Amino acid sequence: MLLRSAANTRRRTASDGGAADIAVSCRVRLARNLRCVRFPDWADEKERCRVFDLLSPWLMKEAGLFHATIAAVGSLDEITRAMLCERHLISREMAERGPGAGVVVGADERLAVMINEEDHLRIQAIMPGMELARAWASANAMDLRLEEQFEFAFHNRLGYLTACPSNVGTGMRASVMVHLLGLRLSNDLDAVLRALERLRLTVRGVNGEGSEAAGHMFQISNQETLGSDETALMDNLLDVVGDVVHQERNARLRLQRDSPAVLLDCVARALAIIQSARIMETEEALDYLSALRLGVSMGLVRRLTIAHVDALALHVQPGHLQRRMGVALEPARRDVMRANLMREMLRPVVLRGMKETI
Amino acid sequence: MLLRSAANTRRRTASDGGAADIAVSCRVRLARNLRCVRFPDWADEKERCRVFDLLSPWLMKEAGLFHATIAAVGSLDEITRAMLCERHLISREMAERGPGAGVVVGADERLAVMINEEDHLRIQAIMPGMELARAWASANAMDLRLEEQFEFAFHNRLGYLTACPSNVGTGMRASVMVHLLGLRLSNDLDAVLRALERLRLTVRGVNGEGSEAAGHMFQISNQETLGSDETALMDNLLDVVGDVVHQERNARLRLQRDSPAVLLDCVARALAIIQSARIMETEEALDYLSALRLGVSMGLVRRLTIAHVDALALHVQPGHLQRRMGVALEPARRDVMRANLMREMLRPVVLRGMKETI
Repeated sequence: MLLRSAANTRRRTASDGGAADIAVSCRVRLARNLRCVRFPDWADEKERCRVFDLLSPWLMKEAGLFHATIAAVGSLDEITRAMLCERHLISREMAERGPGAGVVVGADERLAVMINEEDHLRIQAIMPGMELARAWASANAMDLRLEEQFEFAFHNRLGYLTACPSNVGTGMRASVMVHLLGLRLSNDLDAVLRALERLRLTVRGVNGEGSEAAGHMFQISNQETLGSDETALMDNLLDVVGDVVHQERNARLRLQRDSPAVLLDCVARALAIIQSARIMETEEALDYLSALRLGVSMGLVRRLTIAHVDALALHVQPGHLQRRMGVALEPARRDVMRANLMREMLRPVVLRGMKETI
Repeated sequence: MLLRSAANTRRRTASDGGAADIAVSCRVRLARNLRCVRFPDWADEKERCRVFDLLSPWLMKEAGLFHATIAAVGSLDEITRAMLCERHLISREMAERGPGAGVVVGADERLAVMINEEDHLRIQAIMPGMELARAWASANAMDLRLEEQFEFAFHNRLGYLTACPSNVGTGMRASVMVHLLGLRLSNDLDAVLRALERLRLTVRGVNGEGSEAAGHMFQISNQETLGSDETALMDNLLDVVGDVVHQERNARLRLQRDSPAVLLDCVARALAIIQSARIMETEEALDYLSALRLGVSMGLVRRLTIAHVDALALHVQPGHLQRRMGVALEPARRDVMRANLMREMLRPVVLRGMKETI
């Protein structure tokens, strides 16, 4: 079984740094390539399969160490591939790749290794909150074990060589996922996003490059991989994200103090729509769950936790929804099933009594 | 008191032709001008006031016959002017006019006469449903009484002369207000509206020229006033509107049969949002009331009538809302008061139990 139930995975812990209602999760990704072997997109299928056959037995063995599962992407059914994407364990691009592409997923889904995505190896560690150091330690440990076994393409002056020049150097991308609905509601979001761009950080929607920020979730990551070491890159990122979290926190408190009606309107509408709608698309569902997430965080909602909201945000996505139903469904039918699921799951949730003289 | 409470006015009657859930109301307007007096926009203020002083005593007397009230527009406070607009008793343009502009409103608000709008006289009769013949009889009776007293600008070949050439001839515009949410939900609305344009009928949003169709209410009226007599114009309009009502009715039945989830989703969301929102703009309120109107008509909603929906659609508008609060309010404050009013008024309303296996 490649994927466990969401309830058992990515559970928020007390060690998430206390900012987990805003800094949802963080991730470190390392891009590595075998020396003297062409990058996957330059290699032919036979060559890619040879890389897979070289790496996978070792990863299978090593995988045993962290109770992982390995799979050739092409051997997975469409729903499972969609689920892996939705959990950010493989990229959407990876889901479409043919023979030679594979993935190893750790038992707790906090470590995954992709074979023959854009690079021969993409090591990825995910942690709750802003625990970038732990994510780095985990990815780095896997990297070191791999490097004991295989020779990586490495240039003394440039660092690790990668298929895309933007990854050359450390091959590392560190990112933190932040929930910025408070800044959106207070109309300060655009200014914050522009400031991040000026700091040479990349901001993307939750589904990566080019995707809209469904559910007001933004992934903030380093743009540069060259000329800095990993710790400096992460420290810089953590500094900036810490500031964004602070601004989001302030925006929420200002809303609560100055515009309680705006806050309550947003949360009350979201809950009402979720409890009433008969048809709902994924993006819309994520937006309303985002409002509830804020509501829980601000103490406006009863009988709901942030962990439940996050689990539901996973289960309403097409792959997870179809797996739950046990059958592939047309989009229109999924929208009905999604609305049914949300009504069912959030039926007991109520707004906390609030003074209405605003 | 110029305006009565909405509950007592425009009550839907059994004589509305049975289509009143779709054909909401109809109206006949006659444009008339005094002979040898310049049109209001060509006259100076003194001349306009002379026209007002000439017409108003007679209208005051005549007004007694239909328990009307007369007012110089300039003497009315802003909220009252807004309320007159919202009830379509004066045009938005009329509300801005200065000395000489006045309005006579009948006790039941089914007959109104504007003095010195675009023409010296605009006689307007409003009836529920598609009772154009009754509206015409009412406007025509007032026209005949006026014509016994005053000499109108009339050309033997052209007919009545008016400030805008498009009104020359009969000076009549007949219109029916229709509620077309079924056609919108079934994506057939644009085709129907295009067909109406081809038939040389004008379709406008509820607030007249240039306005969006808030609440999916469309005013269908004759474009031509020249070369046809009044009865032919009205018969043509009634034929076409009858067909539109038929198409809307079919769209609703098709939705109920083929896409009950779409219908229920629309109505359930509207009710949930109205019962939960803390801030709501007018247009949004009208759109949700429009969905409830459809819900009542399709038997999906309990403890609500179409008359209540229509009354509320009046009371959520800025003028009515401010009169109810007894004070002028900034738009942002109105949005909060509007949401409060709607939550309060529709608290007891519930969806009718519906089989959910769709």
